[in-house]
Amino acid sequence: MHHWAAAHDWPVAFTEALSDDPDSGPVTIPRQRLEGKVDLVVALGGDGTMLSAVRSVGPLCVPVLGINLGSLGFLTELTPRDLVFALDRINRGDYFIEKRMLLAARLEGESDRGSIVALNDAVVDKGAVARVIHLDLHVNDEFVSSYAADGLIVSTPTGSTAYSLAVGGPIIHPTIDAIIIAPIAPHTLAQRPMVFSPDDRVRITLVSHRRGATFTVDGQVACMLNSGESVTIERAAFKAHLVRLVENSFYRVLRDKLGWGFKPTAQ
Amino acid sequence: MHHWAAAHDWPVAFTEALSDDPDSGPVTIPRQRLEGKVDLVVALGGDGTMLSAVRSVGPLCVPVLGINLGSLGFLTELTPRDLVFALDRINRGDYFIEKRMLLAARLEGESDRGSIVALNDAVVDKGAVARVIHLDLHVNDEFVSSYAADGLIVSTPTGSTAYSLAVGGPIIHPTIDAIIIAPIAPHTLAQRPMVFSPDDRVRITLVSHRRGATFTVDGQVACMLNSGESVTIERAAFKAHLVRLVENSFYRVLRDKLGWGFKPTAQ
Amino acid sequence: MHHWAAAHDWPVAFTEALSDDPDSGPVTIPRQRLEGKVDLVVALGGDGTMLSAVRSVGPLCVPVLGINLGSLGFLTELTPRDLVFALDRINRGDYFIEKRMLLAARLEGESDRGSIVALNDAVVDKGAVARVIHLDLHVNDEFVSSYAADGLIVSTPTGSTAYSLAVGGPIIHPTIDAIIIAPIAPHTLAQRPMVFSPDDRVRITLVSHRRGATFTVDGQVACMLNSGESVTIERAAFKAHLVRLVENSFYRVLRDKLGWGFKPTAQ
Amino acid sequence: MHHWAAAHDWPVAFTEALSDDPDSGPVTIPRQRLEGKVDLVVALGGDGTMLSAVRSVGPLCVPVLGINLGSLGFLTELTPRDLVFALDRINRGDYFIEKRMLLAARLEGESDRGSIVALNDAVVDKGAVARVIHLDLHVNDEFVSSYAADGLIVSTPTGSTAYSLAVGGPIIHPTIDAIIIAPIAPHTLAQRPMVFSPDDRVRITLVSHRRGATFTVDGQVACMLNSGESVTIERAAFKAHLVRLVENSFYRVLRDKLGWGFKPTAQ
Repeated sequence: MHHWAAAHDWPVAFTEALSDDPDSGPVTIPRQRLEGKVDLVVALGGDGTMLSAVRSVGPLCVPVLGINLGSLGFLTELTPRDLVFALDRINRGDYFIEKRMLLAARLEGESDRGSIVALNDAVVDKGAVARVIHLDLHVNDEFVSSYAADGLIVSTPTGSTAYSLAVGGPIIHPTIDAIIIAPIAPHTLAQRPMVFSPDDRVRITLVSHRRGATFTVDGQVACMLNSGESVTIERAAFKAHLVRLVENSFYRVLRDKLGWGFKPTAQ
Repeated sequence: MHHWAAAHDWPVAFTEALSDDPDSGPVTIPRQRLEGKVDLVVALGGDGTMLSAVRSVGPLCVPVLGINLGSLGFLTELTPRDLVFALDRINRGDYFIEKRMLLAARLEGESDRGSIVALNDAVVDKGAVARVIHLDLHVNDEFVSSYAADGLIVSTPTGSTAYSLAVGGPIIHPTIDAIIIAPIAPHTLAQRPMVFSPDDRVRITLVSHRRGATFTVDGQVACMLNSGESVTIERAAFKAHLVRLVENSFYRVLRDKLGWGFKPTAQ
Repeated sequence: MHHWAAAHDWPVAFTEALSDDPDSGPVTIPRQRLEGKVDLVVALGGDGTMLSAVRSVGPLCVPVLGINLGSLGFLTELTPRDLVFALDRINRGDYFIEKRMLLAARLEGESDRGSIVALNDAVVDKGAVARVIHLDLHVNDEFVSSYAADGLIVSTPTGSTAYSLAVGGPIIHPTIDAIIIAPIAPHTLAQRPMVFSPDDRVRITLVSHRRGATFTVDGQVACMLNSGESVTIERAAFKAHLVRLVENSFYRVLRDKLGWGFKPTAQ
Repeated sequence: MHHWAAAHDWPVAFTEALSDDPDSGPVTIPRQRLEGKVDLVVALGGDGTMLSAVRSVGPLCVPVLGINLGSLGFLTELTPRDLVFALDRINRGDYFIEKRMLLAARLEGESDRGSIVALNDAVVDKGAVARVIHLDLHVNDEFVSSYAADGLIVSTPTGSTAYSLAVGGPIIHPTIDAIIIAPIAPHTLAQRPMVFSPDDRVRITLVSHRRGATFTVDGQVACMLNSGESVTIERAAFKAHLVRLVENSFYRVLRDKLGWGFKPTAQ
């Protein structure tokens, strides 16, 4: 990439947080170094790297190109050997931007500044110990339901193929705007995943649990939730801008990653 | 209702098809008698009566008021004792119209005139005998997946609380526009319900099955499907107009009908 | 196989029903020709051929060797190229018999002679048209539950990887004796698959449905069920005897057939 | 109860651990005070109290009578007002003992003495933070499958109506002996709950997870599991002895607790 960038007179900057420490958590790119100076972010890694790149550029709407260093990802369709080819095409303007809805999540009572952006999902989850938590769900201040469950996943369509899918949530094409709410291991057996309008405002309240609950955004712990506290989740004011070279291969990725070729049953 | 209508100088007409024969199938209201002459249809029955009333008025967009003669319905929130109260409010203009997305389904190759309108769902289903059928799903002419299953349900958000829910489909607020596709008993275990844009055009092809498959719209058989034949399903050009007196009791109806009050598990 | 049989002085007989007509239904081997004269049945085909071979030998307990002519099956682990090798081992006595529980199903009121034997499952199912049937389930004459569903599957452990699995039933190792009952598309959302003792006697009653229901055994229609009629299903008096050359590869077959190697999700 | 006991000349002892501190964890009854001196344990509380009473009497096989102080439980069918009636019947010998299978779980490498007894389930679970853990499942030292999931639940039939049910596990009549293994939020979508023989020995290995996993028995944390460590779970050498006054009301309790009376769908 260096050679290509030098040959095409593109300046390249690396982010400071490329630590070797596996416990250092997500790569965080300081916004102040990005603002106004960056035209393209190249995320080298898996879907997780892509998530943190998107969250880092945030409202700047800088396009992000994902290069997959591991197995086929939903967000990162290109492999390292595609990199120079991809940069050539981007340099020629031969690419398009896929906009993805983001969620903004915050502890109830916090200001908007305290919001954390999610590309996949925001999750209220039992802690390490307890088996069941009791949660109340309100949408636009209207009571929807109480849950006795391991937790609740609030997901974007992008996140519909991640954690939400594992608990029975529907797959939603990522170019659609919608909010999915799926319970994790609901003891109230008749409860099902629900899909809400992208303009709905979701509030989840931890009704009572003496050990508290965990609030996680895109797989990173945001805070602990005490009994009686709520989190608010709604559509973010901006969208993620993903660089795409090939149009709409979503269903092919689905078939490959979910193994839909299999015809399993005995007859 | 007669007394009220006479007192308020409203003409009342009954549809001819109010047969006592339980095998007579759905109530069909002849369109030619409706067009231009009707301001309100009152559907007395259950959700099924409501479905056929909506399909009968079709593109006329006449508002439909549902009165539930049986147990609480998703579409018919009022009981017979609410009828006069409801008519009073409608007469005063103290009501609102909730518009619901409809699907138009037709055998591939048929003209638009051959379309059948669905408020709930269109289903391609194995016949009485065979256990598994093989179906191909295309969306906007792009291949999505093959299914080995008992069938596929294509549902509106209104239908998301009907058959689709029974096979694990998500609940979608009925004021949202979207198309749900949920497999019935998929032998390909990794397949999941999917949500598509309301503007997507769905095509389902019966790949091979020597006894054919059944195509059903809102629970009524539309036609048999032979091997190699397809059905096309997309958003209808018009919407259903449901009379509402109370705003947005969808979640209350859900809690009541699905028994979400229950807290079942042993601990 | 002829050459091998001639060389080893084994008489070979084919069954009369090897029809080319694809609509002729399952291969049926006349019992009168089998009784006392047959030491081994070789079923050439898929799992379906195996099912009908097992049902044909019935209480004779003749061992059945399955040779898979198609893709990997749960019941037929050998391919045609393994056939001579398998016969050699059987001739040397270098094999073992895996006994599989069978179900005996009959219309309530019929004598035991009217029983049909199932290796996989017995299913009460809505007909071609209707969407929901109402069924009552009794076990040992005790009422268990009412179901509003597309049907009920009563399965052996062998059948637990067939139709029952497609509706969410559990996988049970085929050497265990148990009865699984799994609802198909239950509208009563809190209902779940259940596992009963192999000694339990199951009775399913069609409560009311004006078009009747279909009763299917191992994928073959046994009879139509009218409103108020019941079927009784219990453990058969004898077991299937399957020839095995390799011990206990059940989990490998599961992993291969169900694609458990896949690691699908986005993170 | 005191009055009744005095009148009938029964000595009564309370356990020391009846603390008012809600954080004191489960009631633990010291075995040394029980052995040889106790004919009946009365567990006053909910199903949780019953679980700890059963675990406390352990191999002594003392019968346990559960009195439910809260809502209807699966294990505790009697209310406080039934207590004197129940004691009268027990005094007359007019009762029976229902034996329930127990699991013995221990960290691989520990001696049998380190086993913990489970009436409901033993669970390997992601910790508070991480989303997915990778587990390998062996049964009788044969590899079954790898899981990418939130965890794995190993359950008795008694526990089949508790946590296992919330993740889609089957309901098993509690008088049957079997072991259920159900994944929590499996990312490998084709994986399903499985039922094993009560004589099978289950081993679960945490393949790799840098933060470790939690091992929980009947809802109580037993230990943390490090990467590469395994737990072994098998049938306990003894059974729980539950006092029953009424025969086999399991299905009634199911219908009541799971709300099977509900007929939810729109048509």
